[in-house]
Amino acid sequence: MTERLIDKPVSQFLTELASSAPAPGGGSVAALSGALGAALVSMVCNLTVGKKRYADVEKDIKALLENSEGLRHKLADLLQADVQAYTAVSQAMKMPRATDEEKAARAEVMQQALKKATEVPLQIAEACVEVIALCQPAAEKGNKNAVSDAGVAILMAEAGLRSAALNILINLGWIEDQRFTAEKQRQLDTLLEGKPAVRDQVYDYVVEKL
Amino acid sequence: MTERLIDKPVSQFLTELASSAPAPGGGSVAALSGALGAALVSMVCNLTVGKKRYADVEKDIKALLENSEGLRHKLADLLQADVQAYTAVSQAMKMPRATDEEKAARAEVMQQALKKATEVPLQIAEACVEVIALCQPAAEKGNKNAVSDAGVAILMAEAGLRSAALNILINLGWIEDQRFTAEKQRQLDTLLEGKPAVRDQVYDYVVEKL
Repeated sequence: MTERLIDKPVSQFLTELASSAPAPGGGSVAALSGALGAALVSMVCNLTVGKKRYADVEKDIKALLENSEGLRHKLADLLQADVQAYTAVSQAMKMPRATDEEKAARAEVMQQALKKATEVPLQIAEACVEVIALCQPAAEKGNKNAVSDAGVAILMAEAGLRSAALNILINLGWIEDQRFTAEKQRQLDTLLEGKPAVRDQVYDYVVEKL
Repeated sequence: MTERLIDKPVSQFLTELASSAPAPGGGSVAALSGALGAALVSMVCNLTVGKKRYADVEKDIKALLENSEGLRHKLADLLQADVQAYTAVSQAMKMPRATDEEKAARAEVMQQALKKATEVPLQIAEACVEVIALCQPAAEKGNKNAVSDAGVAILMAEAGLRSAALNILINLGWIEDQRFTAEKQRQLDTLLEGKPAVRDQVYDYVVEKL
């Protein structure tokens, strides 16, 4: 079994990202960015629970923490899933295409792989949207000394969403099933809607508190 | 010697980030986000150099790659520097303050540590601004199949800049030397100026090409 990308050192992740290898690429970074956002929400919560001063929000913070930890692990898994999905596309591209039969077989495998490589960043985008929803409550209710970390969380979660969007869009451009592309485009539009405004809102709130 | 944070597995970085330990925190994420942006610019360049189709931009791309690789390593070093600077603040806070002498000694060490903890994210912000400047040329001149990666690069670099800004601002709030704070605030304002517009411009350019 090959080592999971998430189990490699940060420095090696960066080196493999910088290389011309097909994966990791932008999709993995989208998942990592979302996971960093989720981890920062968790950090704010962990700096808040058990503190007398924040006893009245303890229940809310614990609920936030449960969500952020779930999303952190989900996004870490999606990082690996994206590498696998992208590797499958890369392998399909290398299939022989000397005869009409080979061309047809390659096209079929390719289209299936591209659909999978669209589904994974769509799941990354969904998880990032869930992380985004946790940032304002973390900034408002969490430990005031960690409010800048809630601000960094929204920046990473929103960048993860938009990065996932770019990876969805580049794959949709190669998919022939128009019903599939229309449905995924619609889902993506819904996920993106209003999120840049939420980013600005949380960021401005945090700056005001600093 | 303790292990550098950058040499730990990505999964462990996320776990330590999520914990209530003082570092890593938002400052480390700012540096990592910038390094991810730089690595993605390098990836676009590495997918472009040596390709016949891009022979006419080979020289420009090689220059871009040299810059992006330098910035990737610089930001990886700054990630570690931020952990050290923040740990120093954290240790200063634990100094005794029973007597007036102890209080004065603690305040002095604290102010020095806070200044250092402001300088490091300022260097992170500067490096992120340099990464931001590489993204449009990477998107325009680089391998068209990797244009979405140039788009993810700008998202990560700009998020890194804004994250660094939040870490600078939170520290400036605790620094008593008004000449220092005014100067750093001025430097930060210059670094931030116009960057959200550059982000939108590169992102929109990339979306149009997908």
